Amino acid sequence: MFEARLIQGSVLKKMIDAIKDIVTDINLDCSSTGISVQAMDSGHVCLVLIELGSDGFEPYRCDRNITLGLGLKALSVVVRCANNDDSITIKAQEGTDNINFVFESPNGEKTSQFEIKLMDIDSEHLGIPDTEYDSVVKMPSHEFQRICRDMSQLGDSIVVACTKDGIQFSASGDMGSGKINLRQSSLVDKEEDQINIELNDPVHLTFALRYLNYFTKATPLSPTVTLSLKAESPLCVTYPIGDFGSMKFFLAPKIDDEDTAAATQE
Amino acid sequence: MFEARLIQGSVLKKMIDAIKDIVTDINLDCSSTGISVQAMDSGHVCLVLIELGSDGFEPYRCDRNITLGLGLKALSVVVRCANNDDSITIKAQEGTDNINFVFESPNGEKTSQFEIKLMDIDSEHLGIPDTEYDSVVKMPSHEFQRICRDMSQLGDSIVVACTKDGIQFSASGDMGSGKINLRQSSLVDKEEDQINIELNDPVHLTFALRYLNYFTKATPLSPTVTLSLKAESPLCVTYPIGDFGSMKFFLAPKIDDEDTAAATQE
Amino acid sequence: MFEARLIQGSVLKKMIDAIKDIVTDINLDCSSTGISVQAMDSGHVCLVLIELGSDGFEPYRCDRNITLGLGLKALSVVVRCANNDDSITIKAQEGTDNINFVFESPNGEKTSQFEIKLMDIDSEHLGIPDTEYDSVVKMPSHEFQRICRDMSQLGDSIVVACTKDGIQFSASGDMGSGKINLRQSSLVDKEEDQINIELNDPVHLTFALRYLNYFTKATPLSPTVTLSLKAESPLCVTYPIGDFGSMKFFLAPKIDDEDTAAATQE
Repeated sequence: MFEARLIQGSVLKKMIDAIKDIVTDINLDCSSTGISVQAMDSGHVCLVLIELGSDGFEPYRCDRNITLGLGLKALSVVVRCANNDDSITIKAQEGTDNINFVFESPNGEKTSQFEIKLMDIDSEHLGIPDTEYDSVVKMPSHEFQRICRDMSQLGDSIVVACTKDGIQFSASGDMGSGKINLRQSSLVDKEEDQINIELNDPVHLTFALRYLNYFTKATPLSPTVTLSLKAESPLCVTYPIGDFGSMKFFLAPKIDDEDTAAATQE
Repeated sequence: MFEARLIQGSVLKKMIDAIKDIVTDINLDCSSTGISVQAMDSGHVCLVLIELGSDGFEPYRCDRNITLGLGLKALSVVVRCANNDDSITIKAQEGTDNINFVFESPNGEKTSQFEIKLMDIDSEHLGIPDTEYDSVVKMPSHEFQRICRDMSQLGDSIVVACTKDGIQFSASGDMGSGKINLRQSSLVDKEEDQINIELNDPVHLTFALRYLNYFTKATPLSPTVTLSLKAESPLCVTYPIGDFGSMKFFLAPKIDDEDTAAATQE
Repeated sequence: MFEARLIQGSVLKKMIDAIKDIVTDINLDCSSTGISVQAMDSGHVCLVLIELGSDGFEPYRCDRNITLGLGLKALSVVVRCANNDDSITIKAQEGTDNINFVFESPNGEKTSQFEIKLMDIDSEHLGIPDTEYDSVVKMPSHEFQRICRDMSQLGDSIVVACTKDGIQFSASGDMGSGKINLRQSSLVDKEEDQINIELNDPVHLTFALRYLNYFTKATPLSPTVTLSLKAESPLCVTYPIGDFGSMKFFLAPKIDDEDTAAATQE
């Protein structure tokens, strides 16, 4: 028997919205400590990792480890039927091939129950090595979303360069070129508006904007986002989920070629 | 001479919006007691009935019974030209083949006058028998709209089941199945948020969601909607219009077949 | 060296939005007194004239007269990257073929720099004669936008008739006909809601709604718009830009033919 109740069901809605355009199926790996999801996009270019601790659910019951395979399309249809202030309970019985979602309104007058078929989904679990990043940048998530959207008007790639002074995003194409600079915040700002840079080493990396624009669909999940960067290593974009989980996206950098290098000369 | 002035012109805009996707032409049957409209959708599946008492208009003048045939497309274009706080006056002279709409802004600075051609529209008046319904459910109109929209993601049909405990809406399809339960409200709620069930006999009926989704376009007309249900009889969905009228939609149930019966088993 | 900084960058965004659907390229004619733009739509039917005085910029520096040719598509992409509360600085060095746009956030933490290529754009400067208009009507810009949009549902042309009592807009087509009358405001209204008519001579002119609907894309620039009308002369539609500039659109009237004359008979 697996049962997990999320008081703020809207969090689940936002999670599904964030990934439904990248992945088609997911495995929910449920254990006594919580739920985790690892999935790659269909082109095997980027990786999504969701971790939800059991303490984010009330109640949380997982009698033994269970993997629940779900199609994102059906899941997306179902969670959209929840109101934003509903609680959502996920239920699965061992030996059945269905999963149940129960939505309850705060006043208890509306209760909805949805059932979808479980699927057998092939998946190889990638070991994600602990990485010591060169630069870790925490910034407002809507600002990162805006920058990715704006830069993709200019070109397909974005160059992210981090120094002790700040972080620079740049792109170029037929129409022209653009550079956006964010300075480390002074201390007076609201915490979630702050730009905070932890720098071990400067980095200068190029990424495909197409995927970053997918990642930023997670923006409603959190007011802040963290970019973890390291030379010749995948970027990790982290959206915290409350204080009990996170959604992470990994994307390998493009090999810097002459074109993109030229575009970022000042 | 026919002349009727609606202080809140926005009510007329909402009425036209509610029916313009179902019916193409309507006859306004005007008499000394008010205006009524009876129209069927082009597939002759559902019926719309609008009743507006003369006391909702100021002034209201109808020298003798007159039927005004109107194309919904032109009518929709014209009423969209009214501002929401304009009054709307409908005017028709006997012997002419035009109808006039006059919009006046509250401060009197803007006056608009539109004229459209009257049409000869064939229509058979259906006698709608007084029905003693098995179950009458009053609920928030936006809740009913939401349920119809959500359920149509799952399947083409919705099963409505009413018992003394509440009302259940269910649907199923390839992706999965869903059931939404609404309990009778306790007394503490705001009246327009309440769910109120008058039950003579439990009912269990199946309807085509396509039409219910048309009906719920009347949601802006009223905060509440009433579903009147009776075994083997058409559903009546009623939206009150102020305290002087109503818009009713009638839809015959689908014949319960094995498929839909199976889908609603608990 | 040319450099001009607009504190309220959103004004530039609104200007570009207003004209990007009519013209494809513009020349910015910069001199010590300010910036002016003259452009015709691709069909050479209507003319746009933008005048921005140097006192609207801080700083403003124009060492010698310079003409900067810009493609609207690239310009539109670039200015959309500015936040509404950013300042925008336009910079061009003599001898280079690039123009730079610098956006700065109010707190100084975000700075963006965009570069687009200058273009050589053929343009003949039309002398616009000083005209003494027969009727000059100042009205809320959103009201004019609404009227043009509503009337274009009825027909392709709008008849504008101005008398001492007010201004009348009318249109007609297959579906019917409509007339909208605005009376001169009494003195009690807010100034920007007022309708003010200066009348030397009554006018009665017909215009293509297609172009008026283009012009009203400038509505966000100003709460008021001024229509300057004269028999057999182009209409001038003026949107003030702060207290330092304006955007004007000119459109020649249609020759009144029997059809449109008939449509406006009362």
